[in-house]
Amino acid sequence: MPSRTYAVIGAGAVGGFYGARLARAGFDVHFLLRGDYDHVARHGLAVESKDGDFILPRVRAYRRAADLPRCDVVLLALKATQNALLPELLPPAMRDGGVVVVMQNGLEMEDEVAAIAGPGRVAGAACYLCSTKAGPGRIRHLDYGQIVLGEHATSGPAEGDRLRRIADDFRAAGVPVEITDDLVRARWKKLAWNIPFSGLEVALGCDTEAIVNDPHGAALAESVMRDVLAAARACGKPLPDDVVPALMDLTRRMTPYRASLWVDYAAGRPMEIEPIFGNPVRAALRAGYRPILVEALYRTLRVLDRRRACGPARG
Amino acid sequence: MPSRTYAVIGAGAVGGFYGARLARAGFDVHFLLRGDYDHVARHGLAVESKDGDFILPRVRAYRRAADLPRCDVVLLALKATQNALLPELLPPAMRDGGVVVVMQNGLEMEDEVAAIAGPGRVAGAACYLCSTKAGPGRIRHLDYGQIVLGEHATSGPAEGDRLRRIADDFRAAGVPVEITDDLVRARWKKLAWNIPFSGLEVALGCDTEAIVNDPHGAALAESVMRDVLAAARACGKPLPDDVVPALMDLTRRMTPYRASLWVDYAAGRPMEIEPIFGNPVRAALRAGYRPILVEALYRTLRVLDRRRACGPARG
Repeated sequence: MPSRTYAVIGAGAVGGFYGARLARAGFDVHFLLRGDYDHVARHGLAVESKDGDFILPRVRAYRRAADLPRCDVVLLALKATQNALLPELLPPAMRDGGVVVVMQNGLEMEDEVAAIAGPGRVAGAACYLCSTKAGPGRIRHLDYGQIVLGEHATSGPAEGDRLRRIADDFRAAGVPVEITDDLVRARWKKLAWNIPFSGLEVALGCDTEAIVNDPHGAALAESVMRDVLAAARACGKPLPDDVVPALMDLTRRMTPYRASLWVDYAAGRPMEIEPIFGNPVRAALRAGYRPILVEALYRTLRVLDRRRACGPARG
Repeated sequence: MPSRTYAVIGAGAVGGFYGARLARAGFDVHFLLRGDYDHVARHGLAVESKDGDFILPRVRAYRRAADLPRCDVVLLALKATQNALLPELLPPAMRDGGVVVVMQNGLEMEDEVAAIAGPGRVAGAACYLCSTKAGPGRIRHLDYGQIVLGEHATSGPAEGDRLRRIADDFRAAGVPVEITDDLVRARWKKLAWNIPFSGLEVALGCDTEAIVNDPHGAALAESVMRDVLAAARACGKPLPDDVVPALMDLTRRMTPYRASLWVDYAAGRPMEIEPIFGNPVRAALRAGYRPILVEALYRTLRVLDRRRACGPARG
């Protein structure tokens, strides 16, 4: 049996990194690119990584979704703020029986994708990766990289153990993978870090190190994190309480970092506010819990997003 | 009986305004000045006011507290961040039987002043005044101006009706005054506006108009305001619920404004974070209520205050 083929839609700091790792390991990976197409078609992809730099001089790059071959696995790593493009980008990239792995931030993105790709054709990956775009076709991998893979609610026994095979491919590419039987819980677990830290990076105008090193910043991050856990619990996805000290510790030991929310804010691009903040707030409200601090952070980001048009980003 | 003599300590946007109004009405007012001394001694005080501009060409100005005559009434309008100077500034300005009227922002400032001036010698004024320093010896009065006067907890019947006489002087100077028998409640009522709006001006980097005109900004201000009311209630100072729509409406109709907290933040000066935010949070916690949103705003301001040293102010 030939190995699975991969398409990467959104070959930025996340999709570019994982796609490049798979391609380096010998898998057949096809990259859909927009702004970086000319550069990557000519020079390939460069990854500066804490695990060792590498260059892929020749990359299967495409400018238009219609030109992509139909693949077994589509890694969807486009910013969720561009999901209006999915009805045009996604179907041409998927072969019959193929699966989309949603690598986007936030909650309920798989539901949105399932509405386009169809039931049973969607899985999700919570990516624990610190990486940034360092330039055209150039990705800087700062820390971590593990993935938690899970099926979407619309998948069933008919989908078999496709995630195990995908996990094997990632592991062959040197990416640690865990498979979960509760993707939504894995999403909440990632949000437990992402909501306080990426939110406060923008609201306070500083990186993770400055937040955890300021006693008020650390206390604020902790109380927002506890509010995320309460929201998750209300939604039937309780996480162990020791997640809080564990994530605070992890952040203290982490390379100082600016999450993609801040990078987008500083660059004047739309932020993924609805996927990361709005959807979790609404899910908690539907479940009967009002996450006061997450809601306040959500509203703060909405105001800053709108105000940014009028002045420089803080930070 | 000769009319009362007044000393103004902290002749800025607030003290300078009220002192100038009293002086223009013929009262004997003595101004303690620092940075503005030379300018005011030479050119007097200028007030640009929505009620009519005026200039006091000759002002009783003093550079050193020791040179002030002892007065019947001391209007204390120094920034609370400079209260470490009070043991040096206050006693020389007060005659026996005199009273300090604390015009500072925040909660519990009268307690601090009573520890220096002595029991029975302190009253407080919640000033509803939109004014700014427009330059040396130049005050810009934008809106409002009324005062709510009340005795401190250490005052008793021995203090008589001195507030009524002071109120008469202010009224003679064209300043609307109300006397309250519950100064702490009046302080909470002012905080119901001041905490959400001056706090969010700094946190969101925009003026009151931008806050109330953004649906998320207005919702955030309202929820912080409700948290202040809950804190006040816990402290035994319930305010009527219609305070919230009334203050939101008032702010919508107000001249777009930047409160002094933002002015200090933008100028790189210390903000009155502890009087306006820290003291109310601690008072509520002592009373058994945790004001989650006010606490989050408090912590946000503490981080921004510390971070400001490292970058430009937002807004």
